[in-house]
Amino acid sequence: MAADVTEQLNTVLPDVFRALDLTGVFLNGVLGGTIARQRRFDLAGFVILAIVSALGGGMLRDTLLQAGTPVALTDPYYLGTAMSGALVAFVIPLGGRWWSRTFLVGDALVLGCWAATGSTKALAAGLGVLPAVMLGVITAVGGGMIRDVVVGQPPVIFGGNTLYATSAVLASLVVIGMNGLGEQTLGMGLAIVVGAGLSILAHWRQWSLPYA
Amino acid sequence: MAADVTEQLNTVLPDVFRALDLTGVFLNGVLGGTIARQRRFDLAGFVILAIVSALGGGMLRDTLLQAGTPVALTDPYYLGTAMSGALVAFVIPLGGRWWSRTFLVGDALVLGCWAATGSTKALAAGLGVLPAVMLGVITAVGGGMIRDVVVGQPPVIFGGNTLYATSAVLASLVVIGMNGLGEQTLGMGLAIVVGAGLSILAHWRQWSLPYA
Amino acid sequence: MAADVTEQLNTVLPDVFRALDLTGVFLNGVLGGTIARQRRFDLAGFVILAIVSALGGGMLRDTLLQAGTPVALTDPYYLGTAMSGALVAFVIPLGGRWWSRTFLVGDALVLGCWAATGSTKALAAGLGVLPAVMLGVITAVGGGMIRDVVVGQPPVIFGGNTLYATSAVLASLVVIGMNGLGEQTLGMGLAIVVGAGLSILAHWRQWSLPYA
Repeated sequence: MAADVTEQLNTVLPDVFRALDLTGVFLNGVLGGTIARQRRFDLAGFVILAIVSALGGGMLRDTLLQAGTPVALTDPYYLGTAMSGALVAFVIPLGGRWWSRTFLVGDALVLGCWAATGSTKALAAGLGVLPAVMLGVITAVGGGMIRDVVVGQPPVIFGGNTLYATSAVLASLVVIGMNGLGEQTLGMGLAIVVGAGLSILAHWRQWSLPYA
Repeated sequence: MAADVTEQLNTVLPDVFRALDLTGVFLNGVLGGTIARQRRFDLAGFVILAIVSALGGGMLRDTLLQAGTPVALTDPYYLGTAMSGALVAFVIPLGGRWWSRTFLVGDALVLGCWAATGSTKALAAGLGVLPAVMLGVITAVGGGMIRDVVVGQPPVIFGGNTLYATSAVLASLVVIGMNGLGEQTLGMGLAIVVGAGLSILAHWRQWSLPYA
Repeated sequence: MAADVTEQLNTVLPDVFRALDLTGVFLNGVLGGTIARQRRFDLAGFVILAIVSALGGGMLRDTLLQAGTPVALTDPYYLGTAMSGALVAFVIPLGGRWWSRTFLVGDALVLGCWAATGSTKALAAGLGVLPAVMLGVITAVGGGMIRDVVVGQPPVIFGGNTLYATSAVLASLVVIGMNGLGEQTLGMGLAIVVGAGLSILAHWRQWSLPYA
């Protein structure tokens, strides 16, 4: 019975991950566009910031892994999805409590998904635990970090009360541990739940990392 | 007769592209040095900004494509040409209307040439149309964008009235379309004319992209 | 007798280089953390800036060389050593004359070591002299440059009185020349002495590169 449920989950979850992954590309594209709007950039700025926000982390990961052209360039949906996000942000001035909350929850789910993807790819390339955590974190927060640097503000993940990087570390550790137990798909799912949970909880409770 | 002209163009044009390519490396090296002068950097700053401006876009493209060491490092002329540009900018305080106009026209021609090169390389690596446009744009404007980020100013292509990124997109689309028709060399030439034309026209007429 | 000494040096020096290399990773990790403290970043900022400072140059070099996953990710000690540096800087507020002097000398030795490593790797990949110098300089100063850009300050190597980039160029040229003579190990040692010597001398005598 339990094995049956696992079986079913293993069939359904990859589609869920894929949907979540593309949702993340779209949401971060919108976020990039929103920042372009705040800075009064033109349409080119919207599109470039959307691509950097949505696909920068994965491109950095794949470039470091050196295992072929980044999936951001070979997958037929990624670039178009990121650009759709830019266009939505260009047309609709998003903001307010509704958008903030939707984005917060969506982004938290995506964070865990991307951290898990990055760590899994790193392990598959034969890397150790520390580099696998690092590549998980890069996948999850690298795009936002590059975006912040490009627009000239200190990366948000260097300080704040969202435990964003910490959630990515935790999600990576979960997926790495579950990989060790041979439970790749369930590990992915658990990583998303744990990463999103900590991220949302930290936001709600205003938890922050220690300062020196 | 027409076939004869095409034949002759196909023989001559590659040399023209090569000359234009190296001219672009030199011009952007000079531009990098000019910015180093404005910021009162020392000779090391001149050389590094020249290399970033002139070769950064191509290095980013080749690093993303992951098809071997970037041509900026294997071509025996690129680094020296970029450094010559730095030295010229170090010795001569360039400026004034003459330099602005020469640079504008030269840079517009180079923009189309680089966008076409980037897109052609991407197609040759088996990528689709959107990624090919993206790599064309990166080749044409990536170096300037990295340079802006390094010196701490928002990238010029995020807003302004030159349609710089747009001209690169158009040049990329031209070369991709002509590639589809089997006319690679003529496509390159047409891309340069179209890219440079739009870029110069936009500057002259003060056209800009829409803002949100 | 002389040959005997050379023999002995060739056996001992690689261990010395390895120790110096890891010392450099640790010192630059501490430096990254020190800058995180100045900017009031949280623990995530400490760790990320430490990794960027300590391993960014080597990662940029290996990514450009495209000869496999960067050694920063495959070597089992690098990431942990850089993170140890972050933790030390997090716990101890380093500063004062003692720390400045220790860091100055340590960092000067590391500069030559890293420049030599980068150039040697570039030559081994079949690159020419100019690209080999460039990759030597990137290995030595690239991490600090990326760190400066990430925290939003103009890279220190663009101006100042330490001849930092110049020392890296000189160390690279020494190792490239000695490689030509077939003296790889001694070249490494000489590069460290020459690079560190110029760097410390320039600091002491307040030498600077010419400005335009």
